[in-house]
Amino acid sequence: MIELPESINNCVAFFKKLPGVGEKTAIRQVLFLAGLDMRDLAAFGDALRALAEIKKCQVCGMLSDNDLCKICSDHGRFASKTICVVENINDCIAIEKSGNYHGKFHVLGGVLNPLLGQGPDEINLDRLKERIVAEQVEEIILAINPTVEGDATCSYIKQFLPESIEIDRIGFGMPIGGSLEYLDAMTITKALENRKKI
Amino acid sequence: MIELPESINNCVAFFKKLPGVGEKTAIRQVLFLAGLDMRDLAAFGDALRALAEIKKCQVCGMLSDNDLCKICSDHGRFASKTICVVENINDCIAIEKSGNYHGKFHVLGGVLNPLLGQGPDEINLDRLKERIVAEQVEEIILAINPTVEGDATCSYIKQFLPESIEIDRIGFGMPIGGSLEYLDAMTITKALENRKKI
Repeated sequence: MIELPESINNCVAFFKKLPGVGEKTAIRQVLFLAGLDMRDLAAFGDALRALAEIKKCQVCGMLSDNDLCKICSDHGRFASKTICVVENINDCIAIEKSGNYHGKFHVLGGVLNPLLGQGPDEINLDRLKERIVAEQVEEIILAINPTVEGDATCSYIKQFLPESIEIDRIGFGMPIGGSLEYLDAMTITKALENRKKI
Repeated sequence: MIELPESINNCVAFFKKLPGVGEKTAIRQVLFLAGLDMRDLAAFGDALRALAEIKKCQVCGMLSDNDLCKICSDHGRFASKTICVVENINDCIAIEKSGNYHGKFHVLGGVLNPLLGQGPDEINLDRLKERIVAEQVEEIILAINPTVEGDATCSYIKQFLPESIEIDRIGFGMPIGGSLEYLDAMTITKALENRKKI
């Protein structure tokens, strides 16, 4: 096995920890970086250090520079009576990118998962209960992934919410651009169940 | 479009510069990093800064902590009369990983490419000429990729080397584990040309 310089190996070890990065990719990325000049590397290093300063929005749990995230500090959006509940920050970003949701969010930071010791107290549910009262929420959209744990989390949330609130879960079916031929049986079943008159 | 915190965007911009990393991957990686603690982030940042200290081996052009890389400072290997000429550091690492080459290397840092303004003076060729004399080289293996520019570079190198030196180019053909069905015509042609009696 090749012995690379210590500073390269050290950096490769960090890159390998990133999601989706294996040894080969890590080496390729570090060799690219090794070709940059000192100023760029220092700036990249500083950008990483600055991530330690990031906060979580005290209302919704989204990442933020301040105590309130950009969505919760937008008066127009904060006045909305709809909260979209998501599992994590990445899911929130995905929905924001779709550009067609204008309400606010609530980031759970996980789903109920007894095997991982994640019960109702470990995910951001108490705060959701408080928000429903404080913000006079009228509608909850559960944008939680269709897994066993996700389903259980949706049932749990539905069970503690007052009946006056409308609770929806995002629609399941065939993805746009998909091909029936390659869809799994479960998705096809859901797509048939969720058919809509045209 | 979602407005992410400044420190996230800043870091995403750096990750997007890495080879093979698009916006989506960059965001996923930075969000992962945002979940790490301050010490880990600082250590990652320091590892990046340390890359600026890296040198190039004064003999072969490989990356190195010192003036000589680990291969050139290994007396056993340096005594070898064979030099394997590669386009870049990544190719050198790939050959080292195969574990079956025990000679030394010479990293060109590119191939002849008139369109990019890369002539013989822009790649590490003068040093190769010097090494052939100084190290009494007997064999050159050209491990240069089979592109138009790579072929031209091989011809150019062959033309200035003394005839007493054996010059080989690595073999082209079907990759192990490949399937004829999916091979391009050029590779099949090469594989037929390079057939070997069994």
